Amino acid sequence: MSSVNPVPLIAAKRDGESLSKADLKALVDGYTEGTVPDYQMSAFLMAAYLNGLSAAEAAALTDAMLHSGTHIDLSSVPGTKVGKHSTGGVGDKVSPILVPLVASCGVPVAKLSGRGLGHTGGTIDKLESIPGFGTDLSVERYRRQVEEVGGVIAGQTGAVAPADKKIYALRDVTATVDSIPLIAASIMSKKLAEGNDALVLDVKCGRGAFMKTDADARTLAETLVAIGAEHDTPVVAVMTNMDVPLGRAVGNWPEIREAIACLRGEHADSALMEIVRGLAGEMIVLGGAAETPAEGREKARAAIESGAALDQFRSLVEAQGGDPTVLDDPDGRADSAPVAEVTAPPDAGGYVADLDALSIGQAAVKLGAGRQTKEASVDPIAGLTQLKKPGDPVDDGDVLAQLHAGGTPDLEAVRAAVRSAYTFSDTPPAAAPALQARYDAEGWTRLSEGAAEEV
Amino acid sequence: MSSVNPVPLIAAKRDGESLSKADLKALVDGYTEGTVPDYQMSAFLMAAYLNGLSAAEAAALTDAMLHSGTHIDLSSVPGTKVGKHSTGGVGDKVSPILVPLVASCGVPVAKLSGRGLGHTGGTIDKLESIPGFGTDLSVERYRRQVEEVGGVIAGQTGAVAPADKKIYALRDVTATVDSIPLIAASIMSKKLAEGNDALVLDVKCGRGAFMKTDADARTLAETLVAIGAEHDTPVVAVMTNMDVPLGRAVGNWPEIREAIACLRGEHADSALMEIVRGLAGEMIVLGGAAETPAEGREKARAAIESGAALDQFRSLVEAQGGDPTVLDDPDGRADSAPVAEVTAPPDAGGYVADLDALSIGQAAVKLGAGRQTKEASVDPIAGLTQLKKPGDPVDDGDVLAQLHAGGTPDLEAVRAAVRSAYTFSDTPPAAAPALQARYDAEGWTRLSEGAAEEV
Repeated sequence: MSSVNPVPLIAAKRDGESLSKADLKALVDGYTEGTVPDYQMSAFLMAAYLNGLSAAEAAALTDAMLHSGTHIDLSSVPGTKVGKHSTGGVGDKVSPILVPLVASCGVPVAKLSGRGLGHTGGTIDKLESIPGFGTDLSVERYRRQVEEVGGVIAGQTGAVAPADKKIYALRDVTATVDSIPLIAASIMSKKLAEGNDALVLDVKCGRGAFMKTDADARTLAETLVAIGAEHDTPVVAVMTNMDVPLGRAVGNWPEIREAIACLRGEHADSALMEIVRGLAGEMIVLGGAAETPAEGREKARAAIESGAALDQFRSLVEAQGGDPTVLDDPDGRADSAPVAEVTAPPDAGGYVADLDALSIGQAAVKLGAGRQTKEASVDPIAGLTQLKKPGDPVDDGDVLAQLHAGGTPDLEAVRAAVRSAYTFSDTPPAAAPALQARYDAEGWTRLSEGAAEEV
Repeated sequence: MSSVNPVPLIAAKRDGESLSKADLKALVDGYTEGTVPDYQMSAFLMAAYLNGLSAAEAAALTDAMLHSGTHIDLSSVPGTKVGKHSTGGVGDKVSPILVPLVASCGVPVAKLSGRGLGHTGGTIDKLESIPGFGTDLSVERYRRQVEEVGGVIAGQTGAVAPADKKIYALRDVTATVDSIPLIAASIMSKKLAEGNDALVLDVKCGRGAFMKTDADARTLAETLVAIGAEHDTPVVAVMTNMDVPLGRAVGNWPEIREAIACLRGEHADSALMEIVRGLAGEMIVLGGAAETPAEGREKARAAIESGAALDQFRSLVEAQGGDPTVLDDPDGRADSAPVAEVTAPPDAGGYVADLDALSIGQAAVKLGAGRQTKEASVDPIAGLTQLKKPGDPVDDGDVLAQLHAGGTPDLEAVRAAVRSAYTFSDTPPAAAPALQARYDAEGWTRLSEGAAEEV
């Protein structure tokens, strides 16, 4: 048992001093063991929120949380394994597309994912909308699937970074969530436990994301990469836009349906696929299967066109017990027809000018797709499809979105939320770039598809 | 039961916003009732520590803590009752002199006092070194003693400001003690519960005090007066020096012995008595028994000379069950002879240049006079007497202090602490003024005995 006295450590952080790696480890270990009570940890967290943590402190905090639990060892799996994480957004179905896509290009991908909370969905909830799909895997089964199939997406168990789980729950009730170093340490303590050799992180920026401003997203990206460097793990952070929802579907099965369509090559020109290829290019380089991100993106494009990515997804679904027939006829699923639609108001003629991701996320929760408390269950069918997006032409009475629900939501409240998310204009709006910039140990590079330009 | 959600209140303080009186009341009430857990209150306290509280917030916090418990009503006692508080220092035996002194001038004084913790002593511990002296009084006995005797000094019970007691205990273990608005609210929530009509506060400033700097002491004084104004209670704050111990005795019985000598008129020219008269002058004006502080000081001087103040102390001791014979022969008490002495080092010739109050306070604790934990008991006899003070001439081998102890302290450690407190010089040092400045609703006035000069 640790016998740290936390008061001088809290006082040091309160006074803007830096804590040593040993101090932070003693604090985290004491908290995990229960010798440091909640009220001391929450005082420390508020001091850290207001006075910040240095890069070295964030790395030390990550390390302490990482070593509080299971650290999966994939060294027996051949190849350079590359992980992926997103800071979360509305309609973010990148992982179920990206994991099989990168694996189909010869780079093994192991991923632990979470469930949704609040207005952002969770990859585990989405995959579990595939009948039979299991996410509660043993470490050995997880390891074997990476080796035999090339990709795996499992649910986080309490065994991974239990200190982070306990600290996150405390932050949630003490107004200390929105701290960039605390967010970075929380993310990295879980991602470094997955067993990958390198990581690509999708740092979402905009009103539908945790990071609302460019400056905050950049600081988070830099903090994440620095923590990776301290753990000898190459990290590339890619900043992507999250002002509007990703794709045209929001909800669990609605998003998997859209992901399958993407794997079939149906939405190659979308912002969603631009982001998928951007992240895939980085992962394929880190995994040693391409020299440059551009070459990696071309490999990814080819894997979609050849059907290799969809085949890989089928293998992953089968390996995890899911029903592969949904891949052949995703639109044929019983009960997945729309229950209502939202139409454009009479004065909406012209173009969709803007679409607020946050309001759409909240509409999806009202339909039953999300959970407001950790214990709640989700409706796999619920959500929105065929969303009109900024730049789309629209006439009076056009359908803005189809609504899906297995339960009996308050459809008028949903319609009001969806309508409030839209604004219209006579001329098409300027399109915000989906891929904004990348950051790695070498520094920042501005991104647009096909070319990388120095900032 | 309160059902406040503390998270938005914590977040507001975290973001530097001000909380309403209703918000602070809900937070304090929830904490006192137990619906707001320790970990949320500690996060709030750290945010308040780092972002501060406005004057209105400090007053609202005071009010909420005051109304969490007993608010003593002395309105049935004739006259204007005036209370007194000191922020605490080493050798601070002002209260046992001042309370009977002011009462003997016709101004009733009711006082609730605390016990000592750490290097500063507590008035209750000091008075309990008088055999038989009781401090655990019922509210009715307290009220009756003010009316019949004119003065009372009782121990704080858990019934007074229980919210403050609970919050103070939490601050002690979460590094949130040294916050001026939190200190001010804690003091005033207890002082406003005593039942007095006006208050004089001795704000000690210097290395032996909680407030180390002039700026901090001034801010605390202003905050205390502002809280009093919000509660329609006139408050005068007097800033006094606490770089060196007050008087020449430190410890419980040693300080009462010195207080008795002061009441006998033996130390009229000391800094200690200058402070006593300064505070008495203010209290006598507030109590309506003098027109000006100078007139009040003269009344106090006369009450010492006439023996009225000592007679008043005898009445107070008798009323609280203490043995009055100690007043007649304070030096004759069994076991109170010195057990050892500390002598000046060989190279000390000349004058005492400086004496560090904090080191002397710590030496007294080592002798058994203080407590390191709230549960510890104190040795009534232990302490230091006949301290040489700055400006005193000193020859090689002169006695710097006599040591007293009922137990078996590590005398070498005590001697080392005492010696480390002293510095010497060839010429007498400049004397720091004991009384520095006063602050009331009209503003600041610089003080020196006999004249008040505008700053």
